[in-house]
Amino acid sequence: MSNTNHNPLADIFHPRSIAFAGIIISDPEHWTRNFLNGLLALKYPGPIYLVNPRGGEVRGIKVYEKFSDIPENVDYVISTVPSKASATLIRDAALKGAKAVQFCTAGFREIGTEEGRKLEQELVEAGRATGVRIIGPNCLGIYNPEACMSFRPEFPKDSGPVGFICQSGGNAATLINRVEHRGVRFSKAVSYGNACDLDESDYLEYLTGDPATKIIAMYIEGIKDGRKFRKALEKATREKPVVLLKGGATEEGARAAAGHTASLAGSFTAWETLCRQFGVIRVDSIEEMSDVLVTLTFLPEPPGRRVALIGAGGGSSVLVTDEFGRRGLEVPPLPVALQNELLEFTPAAGNILHNPIDYSQSLSTTEGLDKTMRILARWSGVDLIIWFTSLMWNETYLAKRLPVLTKSIVHQAKTFGKPLALVLEASNEPEEVKLITPFIRECAKHGLASYYSFASAANAIDKVIRNRERRQQLRG
Amino acid sequence: MSNTNHNPLADIFHPRSIAFAGIIISDPEHWTRNFLNGLLALKYPGPIYLVNPRGGEVRGIKVYEKFSDIPENVDYVISTVPSKASATLIRDAALKGAKAVQFCTAGFREIGTEEGRKLEQELVEAGRATGVRIIGPNCLGIYNPEACMSFRPEFPKDSGPVGFICQSGGNAATLINRVEHRGVRFSKAVSYGNACDLDESDYLEYLTGDPATKIIAMYIEGIKDGRKFRKALEKATREKPVVLLKGGATEEGARAAAGHTASLAGSFTAWETLCRQFGVIRVDSIEEMSDVLVTLTFLPEPPGRRVALIGAGGGSSVLVTDEFGRRGLEVPPLPVALQNELLEFTPAAGNILHNPIDYSQSLSTTEGLDKTMRILARWSGVDLIIWFTSLMWNETYLAKRLPVLTKSIVHQAKTFGKPLALVLEASNEPEEVKLITPFIRECAKHGLASYYSFASAANAIDKVIRNRERRQQLRG
Repeated sequence: MSNTNHNPLADIFHPRSIAFAGIIISDPEHWTRNFLNGLLALKYPGPIYLVNPRGGEVRGIKVYEKFSDIPENVDYVISTVPSKASATLIRDAALKGAKAVQFCTAGFREIGTEEGRKLEQELVEAGRATGVRIIGPNCLGIYNPEACMSFRPEFPKDSGPVGFICQSGGNAATLINRVEHRGVRFSKAVSYGNACDLDESDYLEYLTGDPATKIIAMYIEGIKDGRKFRKALEKATREKPVVLLKGGATEEGARAAAGHTASLAGSFTAWETLCRQFGVIRVDSIEEMSDVLVTLTFLPEPPGRRVALIGAGGGSSVLVTDEFGRRGLEVPPLPVALQNELLEFTPAAGNILHNPIDYSQSLSTTEGLDKTMRILARWSGVDLIIWFTSLMWNETYLAKRLPVLTKSIVHQAKTFGKPLALVLEASNEPEEVKLITPFIRECAKHGLASYYSFASAANAIDKVIRNRERRQQLRG
Repeated sequence: MSNTNHNPLADIFHPRSIAFAGIIISDPEHWTRNFLNGLLALKYPGPIYLVNPRGGEVRGIKVYEKFSDIPENVDYVISTVPSKASATLIRDAALKGAKAVQFCTAGFREIGTEEGRKLEQELVEAGRATGVRIIGPNCLGIYNPEACMSFRPEFPKDSGPVGFICQSGGNAATLINRVEHRGVRFSKAVSYGNACDLDESDYLEYLTGDPATKIIAMYIEGIKDGRKFRKALEKATREKPVVLLKGGATEEGARAAAGHTASLAGSFTAWETLCRQFGVIRVDSIEEMSDVLVTLTFLPEPPGRRVALIGAGGGSSVLVTDEFGRRGLEVPPLPVALQNELLEFTPAAGNILHNPIDYSQSLSTTEGLDKTMRILARWSGVDLIIWFTSLMWNETYLAKRLPVLTKSIVHQAKTFGKPLALVLEASNEPEEVKLITPFIRECAKHGLASYYSFASAANAIDKVIRNRERRQQLRG
């Protein structure tokens, strides 16, 4: 594996000082304040310089009227200055020794006018002339908890295994926030917009060589250089699992992508071929990516595709079995010897002691469930165990059920010696959500994958298992 | 259309008195208390008789020690008596003039033993001998808000257009609770379990002729009489849209269904053919059924498949377009004349004024959004409008955005003269859920379909439009 220090992006992702040019003084609620609030929330340790012609002070930090007024060198620049002033900012930044400028600013090539194209070209030329690298324009830039950098203040302060390359800032924020309580954490994320200089392949190469990144996730609308990307993707998939959400997968979506980040979306068939060829996990939505990342982060590699399903509810047990069965995961019948072991302490009526096991009536005590889980863990005929239930909103029911699940399963999982995941088919009823969110957090704390629907669990687990098989084939 | 009065099930679904045999006295938290609590919560107006050998009083209602002690005739019986006492209960009920007994009791044919099969046969024979009809066994029975009957106390008290035939009690409760805040209401629902007497075809015939039922939803694990069901389904689809979730769609799931309701699941290909032949909307999960029922309940029939997408977020706009595009819904480009109209009051940078329209920056005032919606409503090139956004959790953002959406869209929708639906791609973050649930309720109150993800919206809308086309072909 390559050393991080050899990649020039390592410095850009770990700047010693940051300037924010174009901060809006008048409106503290303006969304671009997230750039400053993010740095302060993550306690960025280096100097922060603010620049706006009006001067003054924001959150106790002096605002310089001109970039050249900054008394020290600046390593990294965040910019919201107007598109017309952007090329000049690059030259100013170069004089302060900046390695990179990230332009949040929109109004370049993506608006489709001659002027927009010209302004972006000027940016590229200013970058080349000065050696300053450009992130964007039309993007939110870097989130790197290790370096205390964040473009939103609510992002987690702790790091994790996922590196995320995301052409859209909104989609980056959606994913990072959506998986927070499920325990998925990021090594680095970058929203890179129009990619007029640094592009998806540069970020991919960097994350491939980054030891803190164990899993690579990508949202890409278009690629700048097909050959370069192909090479970077081949290398990445050889070393790490890669998940791709392709924006602009349809003709209609491709038109949208052109308007969003001036991307040429390319043929979707070509993308599909590329994914198959190198063993990339392809997903269609942020939700699907969330579930796949939960799986990659937490589910230990099962030796095969045979699943024991145990949970509550007869109808639920039929539906969850269909979801796993329809994706080619096996749900083998429970051997009679194990059925008899279960019957020793479980009534037959109201419980279904095959596989799936409907364990509805014994959920009021931890003892029966714990015994059952240990019997399943000993079953050599399955490779992983899925606990499932449908949480129809009912305070009494949840108040009884969740502590039993926590004690018998979540806290015991490490002693089972078999991969385990939990599926709570939950509603959006606020009281239910309030009760189950701490439970989901508890699962994550104990290193367990949890899901919000039978379909999403089966889909993500199947995709991850298939991808492991595929990558083994390719490497073998 | 047939008159409700001609179907004998109409009386069973509107009983003048109800007895609950086998109520548990000792544990007020026991889940079977839902049968009594449901009747009391919906203020069932007729007499309620409770029966348990221990006698006493529950919630102010006298408990008779023997069924024969009930002083009056009984129209309908809910039973949780043990399986061995069930045939006797039917004979007791017949002496009191009961038309039907619903057996919650499990431990019959579904447990797969000779004894279970024998007990169920005795039940059938007692029913035939006495003329008492049987719902179940192994089920939760009837929810009919019009008759103030409910097997769970939290179910809505008001009626709506959906009739739901559901072999699983748990799945019935999951669906009814899941769509409550989205405004879907039920004319009748029945959980019917093993269907040893009254079966899916009987319920389907009844709901087909029931004027209060405009949409029929079904969760079926197996059918009792293929020819009878085929005939009932053909008639039903001729009159009403029918949605089917088939439990036991896979080999593994079929085995689970056998253990759950003793159903022979049948070949899935045969089911698929049946659905295509008669124009049934087939869904794979309760979630998918929820979205289809929201669509059938609220989305006015659009004249075609051309969609205007308007919302917030560049990355979101690409993803939502892909979801609609990949299902064959058209997203035609916005005509230049309308683009120019929008440009009169909308900045080009940060907004994308094609179709999809990314309207991020103008969301802080209602005026711009309202103007834009009215321009889209005049656009003859599209058949429906979808408003979309991804709600990345942020209190300030939501607090600003939701009132704008409510004022400019939800309260104005009726004046647009074009079908409209809203998609809020939301997380499970409890604070976000707490804020958006009232908004979703407001949509339902104003007769608007709302969805929780781009994929589920596109999927449900496509399925409903395709089904309308298919049923028109079949009838035409």
